[in-house]
Amino acid sequence: MAAPLIGLDIPGGDHAPECTLQGAWQAVDPQGRWKLPAGRILLVGDEPMIRAWLASKGGDPGFRILHASQVIGMDESPATALRSKQDSSIAKLMGAVKAGHAGAAVSMGNTGAVVGAATLLLGTLPGVLRPGIAVTMKFGGAPLTILDMGALSQPKPENLLQHAVMGAALAKSSHGIANPRVGLLNIGGEASKGTELLKAVFPLLEGSGLNFIGNVEGNEVFRGKCDVLVTDGFTGNVLLKFCEDFAAQMIQLAVKESAVSGVQIPREALGRIQKHIDYSEYGGALLLGVNGIVFKGHGRSDHHAVSNALFAASLALDARLNEHIVSALAAQPLAPQSQG
Amino acid sequence: MAAPLIGLDIPGGDHAPECTLQGAWQAVDPQGRWKLPAGRILLVGDEPMIRAWLASKGGDPGFRILHASQVIGMDESPATALRSKQDSSIAKLMGAVKAGHAGAAVSMGNTGAVVGAATLLLGTLPGVLRPGIAVTMKFGGAPLTILDMGALSQPKPENLLQHAVMGAALAKSSHGIANPRVGLLNIGGEASKGTELLKAVFPLLEGSGLNFIGNVEGNEVFRGKCDVLVTDGFTGNVLLKFCEDFAAQMIQLAVKESAVSGVQIPREALGRIQKHIDYSEYGGALLLGVNGIVFKGHGRSDHHAVSNALFAASLALDARLNEHIVSALAAQPLAPQSQG
Repeated sequence: MAAPLIGLDIPGGDHAPECTLQGAWQAVDPQGRWKLPAGRILLVGDEPMIRAWLASKGGDPGFRILHASQVIGMDESPATALRSKQDSSIAKLMGAVKAGHAGAAVSMGNTGAVVGAATLLLGTLPGVLRPGIAVTMKFGGAPLTILDMGALSQPKPENLLQHAVMGAALAKSSHGIANPRVGLLNIGGEASKGTELLKAVFPLLEGSGLNFIGNVEGNEVFRGKCDVLVTDGFTGNVLLKFCEDFAAQMIQLAVKESAVSGVQIPREALGRIQKHIDYSEYGGALLLGVNGIVFKGHGRSDHHAVSNALFAASLALDARLNEHIVSALAAQPLAPQSQG
Repeated sequence: MAAPLIGLDIPGGDHAPECTLQGAWQAVDPQGRWKLPAGRILLVGDEPMIRAWLASKGGDPGFRILHASQVIGMDESPATALRSKQDSSIAKLMGAVKAGHAGAAVSMGNTGAVVGAATLLLGTLPGVLRPGIAVTMKFGGAPLTILDMGALSQPKPENLLQHAVMGAALAKSSHGIANPRVGLLNIGGEASKGTELLKAVFPLLEGSGLNFIGNVEGNEVFRGKCDVLVTDGFTGNVLLKFCEDFAAQMIQLAVKESAVSGVQIPREALGRIQKHIDYSEYGGALLLGVNGIVFKGHGRSDHHAVSNALFAASLALDARLNEHIVSALAAQPLAPQSQG
């Protein structure tokens, strides 16, 4: 059986379609870093435009193409847009995954529309209560997966337990970590610390069979204590957005203050610093728990980020990530129902 | 009437008593930056040791001294230590504030013991439901006060409203901001975003008479949108600890990657970068809402941080911060009781 296709939302993103087309082109370059077979990539968007672009590059290397006549803008209301634009690239992309024509979807487009269409059309994997959004960074050197980044701002204890199980399945199957260490983001080390939610989650994680290493405080996030860090979607979203902007401002500050002292930090050094906090290296945000592989990259992604996301999607498919998630969840002792 | 005394916990902190004594010494240096009168500082600790240290410096410039024979260690259980060590410097310091011998307390010691003793002994100001912990940083240039940093990990809506009122009173009276802009940390811009708590707080802030500018997302924290940023104690604690460690790691990374490119970032440039995220510039963490001025500095504070905290305490006393808080709270329309 042929490997499942990876669908790409061509008009999605601030720099689309140029960066999405260029990203796909680069991902299938036989001399490039990723070397994906072109026949595995399904370009979803305006077919005449896509064909014209490929012709301008000297010809189609064998991409699959799915025509979509409409585009959901970055700032459109997701619910309204999904209802009124049934021939949008996002709707067609998710439709292809739902129908089994593709195994994975990659989009740099409207976040609400991508997550909404995925949740609505694909449904959840067997045993999954609520999906979570995972992001992987390698700031400390090794990859750290943090979830949830905003799917569930007020989860129940059993949601966090499931997110931990799914995050560990990702770290194991896609990042090659044999027995991933799972940490719980909290404001102290003891089991009795934090909110009622976290006090309820702690014993669930202890009894889960996961390699649970306990609570991880804010100052320990990037100190290599764990491979998977679990938190609620509110805290995760605040932290991720804070981290991105703060890193950028720290870099600017280092450049500025060095210049005051007459020193110029070389451009290539800045590039290497930037890479440490760039989660597009791991394909962007991954919607875990839906019946398909869905990567949502940053709206401002460049073509490298698009190639990375296509490659990350191929890794997740080839590693059969979702099968691992389903069996890991099935192996869990039933989580007690939350009080709330 | 003489200005109220500022009590200093001499044995509190990782580098005490050397750094606390040196910090007090520097704060009263007539040639120094702070120029506080020595007679305004009450040194709380082992009196013979303090007198010997002052003698070694050439004599006592006129400090007040309060003997305390016991010390609460940095890692001791706060509740147990406060019960068993009634002659500890922290207990004596708070006792002096309670008795009206001092108006403010500064400690770099055991956080739980300081907050516990302050809450227990001093009680809250009239109208205050629950105290909050505020920290001020000037990362973006202007001072930004963020609260709560961990006093209340699961606040009710009326607690956050009161924290906003108290933070605005601090920004106005101590930082000289005439009409402080108040923001609410959230995961989106609309009033309907975020947790049930935040959805309930939003209209309270709108009706508060404060200069409420709406929600502030993680990537906007240090973008100068507001002067006071309100959040629950869980998120605030995670964010503050993350910020401190991440900043330190970003600086290390900049040094390392510049070195790889053959460039050395000058030490003085690193010092200037560090100052941007150093909240000890504003005295450390301020416990807002108790009947007294209580600054809790970092355990690892140096003598500059101690001097800063003594100065910040003098500013808060001279600006009559707590009187402003009481009248600002009294002017609030009664907050509706929370549903929880």
